[in-house]
Amino acid sequence: MMIPGIPGEGEAMNKILNKGLGVAAILCCLQIPGGCSAPEQRSSYEPLARTILARGLTEQGAYRVLEQITSVGPRLAGSPQAAAAVDLAAGIMRDLGFDDVHLEPAQVEHWLRGEPEQARLVSTKAGTIPLDVCALGGSIGTPADGVSAEILEVKSFDELRRAGEKARGRVIFFNRAWDQSKLETFAGYGPMVQQRDLCAIEAARAGGVAAVARSATTSLDDYPHTGLMHYDPALPPVPAAALSTKSADRLSETLAEDPSTRLYLWMNCRGEAPVTSYNVVGEIRGGELPSEIILLGGHLDSWDLGAGAHDDGAGCSQAVEALRLIRAMGLKPKRTIRAVLFMDEEFGGAGGRDYARSDRRKSEKHLVAIESDRGGFRPLGIGIGNQSTFPKFQKWEPLLQAVGLFWLRPGGGGVDIAPLAAQGTVMGGLVPDSQRYFDFHHSARDVLSAVNPRELEIGAVAMAVLAYVLAKEGI
Amino acid sequence: MMIPGIPGEGEAMNKILNKGLGVAAILCCLQIPGGCSAPEQRSSYEPLARTILARGLTEQGAYRVLEQITSVGPRLAGSPQAAAAVDLAAGIMRDLGFDDVHLEPAQVEHWLRGEPEQARLVSTKAGTIPLDVCALGGSIGTPADGVSAEILEVKSFDELRRAGEKARGRVIFFNRAWDQSKLETFAGYGPMVQQRDLCAIEAARAGGVAAVARSATTSLDDYPHTGLMHYDPALPPVPAAALSTKSADRLSETLAEDPSTRLYLWMNCRGEAPVTSYNVVGEIRGGELPSEIILLGGHLDSWDLGAGAHDDGAGCSQAVEALRLIRAMGLKPKRTIRAVLFMDEEFGGAGGRDYARSDRRKSEKHLVAIESDRGGFRPLGIGIGNQSTFPKFQKWEPLLQAVGLFWLRPGGGGVDIAPLAAQGTVMGGLVPDSQRYFDFHHSARDVLSAVNPRELEIGAVAMAVLAYVLAKEGI
Repeated sequence: MMIPGIPGEGEAMNKILNKGLGVAAILCCLQIPGGCSAPEQRSSYEPLARTILARGLTEQGAYRVLEQITSVGPRLAGSPQAAAAVDLAAGIMRDLGFDDVHLEPAQVEHWLRGEPEQARLVSTKAGTIPLDVCALGGSIGTPADGVSAEILEVKSFDELRRAGEKARGRVIFFNRAWDQSKLETFAGYGPMVQQRDLCAIEAARAGGVAAVARSATTSLDDYPHTGLMHYDPALPPVPAAALSTKSADRLSETLAEDPSTRLYLWMNCRGEAPVTSYNVVGEIRGGELPSEIILLGGHLDSWDLGAGAHDDGAGCSQAVEALRLIRAMGLKPKRTIRAVLFMDEEFGGAGGRDYARSDRRKSEKHLVAIESDRGGFRPLGIGIGNQSTFPKFQKWEPLLQAVGLFWLRPGGGGVDIAPLAAQGTVMGGLVPDSQRYFDFHHSARDVLSAVNPRELEIGAVAMAVLAYVLAKEGI
Repeated sequence: MMIPGIPGEGEAMNKILNKGLGVAAILCCLQIPGGCSAPEQRSSYEPLARTILARGLTEQGAYRVLEQITSVGPRLAGSPQAAAAVDLAAGIMRDLGFDDVHLEPAQVEHWLRGEPEQARLVSTKAGTIPLDVCALGGSIGTPADGVSAEILEVKSFDELRRAGEKARGRVIFFNRAWDQSKLETFAGYGPMVQQRDLCAIEAARAGGVAAVARSATTSLDDYPHTGLMHYDPALPPVPAAALSTKSADRLSETLAEDPSTRLYLWMNCRGEAPVTSYNVVGEIRGGELPSEIILLGGHLDSWDLGAGAHDDGAGCSQAVEALRLIRAMGLKPKRTIRAVLFMDEEFGGAGGRDYARSDRRKSEKHLVAIESDRGGFRPLGIGIGNQSTFPKFQKWEPLLQAVGLFWLRPGGGGVDIAPLAAQGTVMGGLVPDSQRYFDFHHSARDVLSAVNPRELEIGAVAMAVLAYVLAKEGI
């Protein structure tokens, strides 16, 4: 590695700390009363922001929380692990001394993957080759002896429609690949979501007997990536599964050599009766305007193949850590800062909907809700508000830059907080760098060791800093 | 994960590509002659930059090169693997059609780790516990039956000096921990380098029989991290080793319980006679001013515990990929763009020194040298020049922003290119985010799977774009 010649971004922070300005002194500065103009407010908060950053990076509390959350295993909505995570998270909040820690019920769908799925290609030329496969969330199982049929490979729904009768009785293999050309990987995810979500509908419409889709991932490897899919009640449901990208390539190559190749698929996944689960809520009660709320959120449920570390144990741990940091610094927000760990983002968003419509909300006004649900990677910025509301927040961009982020921009939100928008709540979202996210997303690779404690913590710090100034200054 | 609601940074790029503006058309625009002012130059290069980014992210050539480089194993200077990597890298450059691919000799130190090291603590209370240990680079071995002695733990050289006679005959255990508080991890590395580099000197000065240092890493795990250390010829050499952070904690805790705890250390590392090795050089010859050179570099040697994937297979693969992209785009630089894979950055920098003083340099003028040696992580910016030369480069910042970076700033350089500074060459360095670097650095964790192909490629793209405009426009 090279000589450490480039001035570190932390140097200015370090100078502040080395000057012997303790937290108390910095806080003292902040207590100076009188009508500060925005620029003065800004500069007065920057030393505090840098102090929170140094403290967060040193203590790495977000990772400690994430270790606990992931320790229960995958937290599919309705599962025993999700129930255990609810109790665990509430216990963590109570141990940290948060105010009004409580659970709010949410009715969630409950789907079971069942025994490990099996898929293999059977070719007279290539032989029998096992494929890495997983059921898509919400899929029905296969008949007890599985499905075995010839295969139609397509890259798009249009191609499938053009195939006409050739699709009938076949396994439809949706093999559209991820478009890697875009810097922002979420731009490549959209078409892959469409392929995954609608594959069973399109396969059934074409007369197919099952749908297998190439995994929605940026990575070329052996891990299938799950995710939600839907049926059309007007069409017969067919089993739907995802293949790892390497298995998809293998299948495609084999089909090119031997078009009579068959796919065998066996799954015994199934839907069960809905379950009552819970959002986990805790807060730092505002000293002056407690019913005005700045919400920080993530979702506690996860897919069932990994441990839901990035998606979205990360966001939950950051919301909890943001409140811990604010308390640990001895800060007393004027408005309430609340952490909400939502249940059931992945399987329909019940927790977010039920939170927004709870009677508890009638006496509350959520000014801003900021969700972290793009993984625990190196944060680049925060998206907040829209073109009309963003100007109220723009002045806080330098505070985010003081803790290592690069921008505050319009845009942002999340599935869980979206139902609050109808109540006039401004939507916000933490935006980490997205290059690695879809390597892990919805797969067995989404485990604790894929998360870097420092990257995770920077997000918690940014959320703490923004939440605190918004709770203090309003919008 | 959340709804993909935030406008992607790649959207503008995508619009360009979707408009059917092919590369040829874009290049055609660039051929318009006449005295462009800086802003016009800037805007005319941005579509090209975005096209290079889209191509790089799609083809991921840097990762393909890195796969090959790391396939030979660790490349400690003077080792057979380093020699194999030299031949392999030259072959890659020839296969890619680079001009004037050749080797330039460098005399390198040759140190051998020998058989796996052993360390264990022996306590009457805690028993005998193995510790994760590695020799530091350049250390002598222990006597054949090892070293066994009581231990003095210190957090600083000052503390050791104050200990006086208590250090005599002991293993000195340097247990200063990484300061996590700084956003830029390189700011925390400096004090850890000092502890590692000078531990044997300070231990010998104090009358100690061996030096063991806490690993210079941000990670709490079981991997010892090696790195170079030095002896003072005026003092007796003592064996010097690094402990994993968890082993260091274990040892410290045991010492607190039982100050009579002993450390047993066995190593048979040793220095051998110097070896002739090589820098690997290839280029795209400039069409008009071929003797004026823009150099892109990394170092081909690595430490011997991992595969040198981040340090610095990444930089080598990015330099090669930058030239590949420029050629693949059909670009014809006015000045020469050269990739140099230096030998022996880790063990003394012989390759960089020998490159700068080679007779070949007499007919060349290196305008700018840009090194990538901070790992293959998500690039944030490029440091270039100093306060006086930077203004000549500042106008290219928007080009870097067009490919996803955030800044171009003064500062930057690298061990390998530093000897060129005396010839008036402007120093530059790629600056990826540093949060994860020291988790892997100089340890067995520095392997191919720790590198994300997209993060790596963005660095290659940024280097390609900056090198091309500098080769075209000069400085």
